[in-house]
Amino acid sequence: MLVRRAEPHDAARVATLLDAFNREYDSPAPELVALTERLTALLASDTFAVLIAGSPPTGFASVSLRPSAYDDGPVALLEDLYVRPELRGRGIGARLIAAVVAHCREVGAGLLEVNVDEADADALRFYAREGFALLQPDTGERAFYLSRDVTSAGDDASG
Amino acid sequence: MLVRRAEPHDAARVATLLDAFNREYDSPAPELVALTERLTALLASDTFAVLIAGSPPTGFASVSLRPSAYDDGPVALLEDLYVRPELRGRGIGARLIAAVVAHCREVGAGLLEVNVDEADADALRFYAREGFALLQPDTGERAFYLSRDVTSAGDDASG
Repeated sequence: MLVRRAEPHDAARVATLLDAFNREYDSPAPELVALTERLTALLASDTFAVLIAGSPPTGFASVSLRPSAYDDGPVALLEDLYVRPELRGRGIGARLIAAVVAHCREVGAGLLEVNVDEADADALRFYAREGFALLQPDTGERAFYLSRDVTSAGDDASG
Repeated sequence: MLVRRAEPHDAARVATLLDAFNREYDSPAPELVALTERLTALLASDTFAVLIAGSPPTGFASVSLRPSAYDDGPVALLEDLYVRPELRGRGIGARLIAAVVAHCREVGAGLLEVNVDEADADALRFYAREGFALLQPDTGERAFYLSRDVTSAGDDASG
């Protein structure tokens, strides 16, 4: 199965996959039209990439890049990884990860990160198999991902 | 105490703070000269910012921005937050977070993220007080941060 990097003209195709992914996990997702428009721009940028498996597409992985004080290259974050439910267990996820890692090397990223829900045992097992460390190498400890909505002007926790 | 955004000419000042931060936590950090050079470029970019408290500096917060498929604006990640040990407990950390949040709003970021070691109870308490959610709003669950070193060509976990 071919895995290739999505181009701007793939935006609608990627939006459909991303929408299916978020519907399956009951996550909020933007409207398809807005998503397609945004992805058209993202897929042309050098700080965001989507890898698509198969044609018609059977899965995708999206990865963002950000600068770091600790390395000359960027740090990569695996944003989403999705394989159509009826096609799981055939190694498509592993092929997508391999393509993401190849992309990281192409752009000079030395670290690939991912955030995984504590209760998602399948995902934790998958990422362990794919070489991701739950115990961080520099501390030997697990690390949590925390987030704060900063859209509302009135929500300042610090007063 | 004034908190201001560091400019490229502050690179050596920021490098010294970042070095102190990593020494305190026994984390690997780049050499000061290389770090200063890198920070000179980062502080001029629009995807990385450092907020400095005090003069001479008593602490700093660094934040990176990356694009997202879920929002027109970028997503912000708090990379490092540091206050000199002898000046802790005076609200400097909270002032730095407030400045980071203000920066997020300026650049249109709606989400501010941070990764925290599970065993770092002080940090977890601090971020909870500052409005960061450990239980993710869309799942009600904690999420782990995982990472994979992708620098070595021979380490492909997926064969």
